[in-house]
Amino acid sequence: MNSKATPGPYFEDFEIGRTIKHAVPRTLTEGDNALYIALTGDRHPLHCDAGFARRLGFRREILNDLLVFHVVFGKTVPDISAYALANLGYADVRFLRPVYPGDTLRSVSEIVGKKENSNGKTGNLYVHTRGQNQRGETVVQFYRWVMLRKRDESASTGEKSIPDLPSEVALADLPIPEELRTLGFTAAATGGDRFFGDYEPGERILHGAGMTIEEAEHALATRLYQNTARVHFDAHFMKSSPAGKRLIYGGHIISLARAMAFQGLENAIRMLAWNGGTHANPTYAGDTIYALTDVISKSELPDHPGLGALRLRLIALKNQDPATEPPEIEMHDEKKGKTVYHPNVVLDLDYYVLMPMEQPR
Amino acid sequence: MNSKATPGPYFEDFEIGRTIKHAVPRTLTEGDNALYIALTGDRHPLHCDAGFARRLGFRREILNDLLVFHVVFGKTVPDISAYALANLGYADVRFLRPVYPGDTLRSVSEIVGKKENSNGKTGNLYVHTRGQNQRGETVVQFYRWVMLRKRDESASTGEKSIPDLPSEVALADLPIPEELRTLGFTAAATGGDRFFGDYEPGERILHGAGMTIEEAEHALATRLYQNTARVHFDAHFMKSSPAGKRLIYGGHIISLARAMAFQGLENAIRMLAWNGGTHANPTYAGDTIYALTDVISKSELPDHPGLGALRLRLIALKNQDPATEPPEIEMHDEKKGKTVYHPNVVLDLDYYVLMPMEQPR
Amino acid sequence: MNSKATPGPYFEDFEIGRTIKHAVPRTLTEGDNALYIALTGDRHPLHCDAGFARRLGFRREILNDLLVFHVVFGKTVPDISAYALANLGYADVRFLRPVYPGDTLRSVSEIVGKKENSNGKTGNLYVHTRGQNQRGETVVQFYRWVMLRKRDESASTGEKSIPDLPSEVALADLPIPEELRTLGFTAAATGGDRFFGDYEPGERILHGAGMTIEEAEHALATRLYQNTARVHFDAHFMKSSPAGKRLIYGGHIISLARAMAFQGLENAIRMLAWNGGTHANPTYAGDTIYALTDVISKSELPDHPGLGALRLRLIALKNQDPATEPPEIEMHDEKKGKTVYHPNVVLDLDYYVLMPMEQPR
Repeated sequence: MNSKATPGPYFEDFEIGRTIKHAVPRTLTEGDNALYIALTGDRHPLHCDAGFARRLGFRREILNDLLVFHVVFGKTVPDISAYALANLGYADVRFLRPVYPGDTLRSVSEIVGKKENSNGKTGNLYVHTRGQNQRGETVVQFYRWVMLRKRDESASTGEKSIPDLPSEVALADLPIPEELRTLGFTAAATGGDRFFGDYEPGERILHGAGMTIEEAEHALATRLYQNTARVHFDAHFMKSSPAGKRLIYGGHIISLARAMAFQGLENAIRMLAWNGGTHANPTYAGDTIYALTDVISKSELPDHPGLGALRLRLIALKNQDPATEPPEIEMHDEKKGKTVYHPNVVLDLDYYVLMPMEQPR
Repeated sequence: MNSKATPGPYFEDFEIGRTIKHAVPRTLTEGDNALYIALTGDRHPLHCDAGFARRLGFRREILNDLLVFHVVFGKTVPDISAYALANLGYADVRFLRPVYPGDTLRSVSEIVGKKENSNGKTGNLYVHTRGQNQRGETVVQFYRWVMLRKRDESASTGEKSIPDLPSEVALADLPIPEELRTLGFTAAATGGDRFFGDYEPGERILHGAGMTIEEAEHALATRLYQNTARVHFDAHFMKSSPAGKRLIYGGHIISLARAMAFQGLENAIRMLAWNGGTHANPTYAGDTIYALTDVISKSELPDHPGLGALRLRLIALKNQDPATEPPEIEMHDEKKGKTVYHPNVVLDLDYYVLMPMEQPR
Repeated sequence: MNSKATPGPYFEDFEIGRTIKHAVPRTLTEGDNALYIALTGDRHPLHCDAGFARRLGFRREILNDLLVFHVVFGKTVPDISAYALANLGYADVRFLRPVYPGDTLRSVSEIVGKKENSNGKTGNLYVHTRGQNQRGETVVQFYRWVMLRKRDESASTGEKSIPDLPSEVALADLPIPEELRTLGFTAAATGGDRFFGDYEPGERILHGAGMTIEEAEHALATRLYQNTARVHFDAHFMKSSPAGKRLIYGGHIISLARAMAFQGLENAIRMLAWNGGTHANPTYAGDTIYALTDVISKSELPDHPGLGALRLRLIALKNQDPATEPPEIEMHDEKKGKTVYHPNVVLDLDYYVLMPMEQPR
């Protein structure tokens, strides 16, 4: 028996500065778009209404930014996180260019930081990933950090190089699509009656839906992204894990929460960037996901008259409907002596959306 | 906390004559077609064989009429029936034009009737909906009526305006596709050996299959249609409903029954119209659906030599195979003192299909 | 009640030499390709990377050979095996031509052998099937044999005509795609670092993944292929079967095992042919599938410099991870006095893949 098929990478397998070109570029098609809608319930017209997209200056409907993110992320899994213990966080996630059906994506990562944890058993790996299209243009880029097992728990690596990651994306760096013609925006397509001026920092929006996840659903989604992380697919293997069952890919939760957030934020044209994000708690098949949004701040975009950026905090909850069971997002943990997420909070995403100032006339 | 995301509309929220342009047009693609086949098992060659479709005069394979119906219906849900207590019936449903991959559908509804129920708690709303393509052509139209909760149970609205809906679609109104060239029909593609002349009013056709539905399947279908009715998706919410679990979208049952009805009706070119339809009983995940067809009548179509219309009654049953457990469709309910559907009957659809008189030579 | 919808064919319904043109040609699209990836996790770049495919001389990405096989197979089910008791084996399966999105497939079968079994209750039917595209070119061909019930157990048919099927596909008959330009191959897309020269007969490759199957998943796949075999869909009917539940389509196991076998065989361009295959044991929802490959032999292809054929034995196991629970593939059964498959072995596929000799420079 040989080891041509080895268990995924360990903390010691990486050195800072190394670049990894991930395998298997992926051509995304109308088929992926339809599946994404069936899996998430996405209703943003930019992804499903060719006429709306064209009036906004795009060639046709573009693929959901999160579909693009998941595919680019998925390609990194075999090389980075196939056996990661946790996806700890994201920073400086920017959706730089629209991706159309027919485009082919590939992923390239650079190792930008490593820190061995004090228990000696694990370490955190910091990775910068770019997703590129067939013309070599970067369509999405992000930092993420993951916790990996060490190959050898007894030997300290002494690694403690934590990169200086931006805590937020600068307004000047928000990627406004070049082709966008705001004048073509029509709220008749979105059904929303609120624009940039109608949202106020501090307000909370409940998105009024709940979505229960089945094993088949998250597995279909995660395979569609060609993400190979074993924890999502192999129930036999996961029987001996602490939870005793499969874990849902955190990205699926982001997709569900964002799809539900259409209600109440209908005129958000698209996601621009994430300042940060945390998978606060795990989710499992049978869980029902709810979403709420806290409006953090609003910014006009001087170079883009008619458009503004809303900074939002998207919270996903499991098995707790915020409309009837008002949520505590964070709470004080006596034992740990610190603030932690409520066990029902499963996502805390700090991100920007692009929104017209008003209905263009 | 604000109410930007409010629970769906109440009976009082509508006035007769009001027109609603529903949000989020939807471009349907090859991806939707493939998913529809995977979700329903549809084998009608007009939807999956480009050559067959072209020989019949169409540009290429057309989307299943029910996929079109569900998408047009789905768009009306947020504005009409997101929290409806029941879909009570359909009338004058006509499939006016073929829809091709790449077409974009939108929905427009008019409120045509309202009747408060005697319990004072609910009312029935009558709605006429048209689905239009990107050229503004109506591709499907239908009346439906739904039971809605009243916002204020203590205040009678006094509404009792029931529209005079046709009990059947007139033969002259059956929408025969303009492009159809009957001479191109070939039973080699369908595998069926029976034509218009071979069916007799009064005969019953058992379709010889059973299809068990899983939660993931109906939820994928219903999200594909961007239908947002909470009862189909939110198991946490539905735990406190009488059934204690999610309800399957009634349209999914129509799709399954119609797909199964291919066997025995192979040469039916397409659905033309529904005279009426009833979701006789609810269905839940784990139910197995069977279908049978009673031939009601046959009509030649004088303006369309070589073609006839079969009027059919499509019955779907749950957990009872009509081949081995002969069904009672209706039964007398002693307590209610009236005829009711057998509890295993889940669909009673009265519709027309188009069928060649014989194999063209 | 009539019998327009009869239970599927019996052993006596076939005569040797008969040709059956199966119904419902099927146009495959990008939608089918995306669904195939979501259902199986396939990552072979020839099926998902248009650029890779073009550099190899293909017009664009081609559909997975197994997707093609399943669709061609599915069309034969209503006429051959809708009520078959078992799929006993395959021989001389050859993937003759690439199939592109937009191609339309049809199936034609010839009955090539019949053998009544000694119990008098069943018989084995041998069938040769060809899948053809819209130009009438054969894209896949295969022999398979199935066990059918006899219509009349009391009347012996005396049939015992077993065809002389090849035990392997001759090297000269391996279908190397005409358009293939080996020089365009790039391992950067596959991520694999091993080529033809790096594999040795006798070595075993563990593919390092496990895939749990849900009812919804195998049913979606099997409906996508328009396969109508009742055992996969009708849980109500299957309650009275020995297993008491639905059986998973054996082809889905082949697809999963082949998709998992990408890891460790990344540079295999495509499947060329099967010498034989056995569904060694049934699988059910909830089973987790693992895969391993034994390298049987290697052959250079004199007419195709730069390319070789690897003969592989693909074994799929259920609920036993070969990395941690070393498998016994075959075992001696005392009672039966013969060698049988271990109950966890669910697939034994003997097939050829095409692989470059080395990374072209």
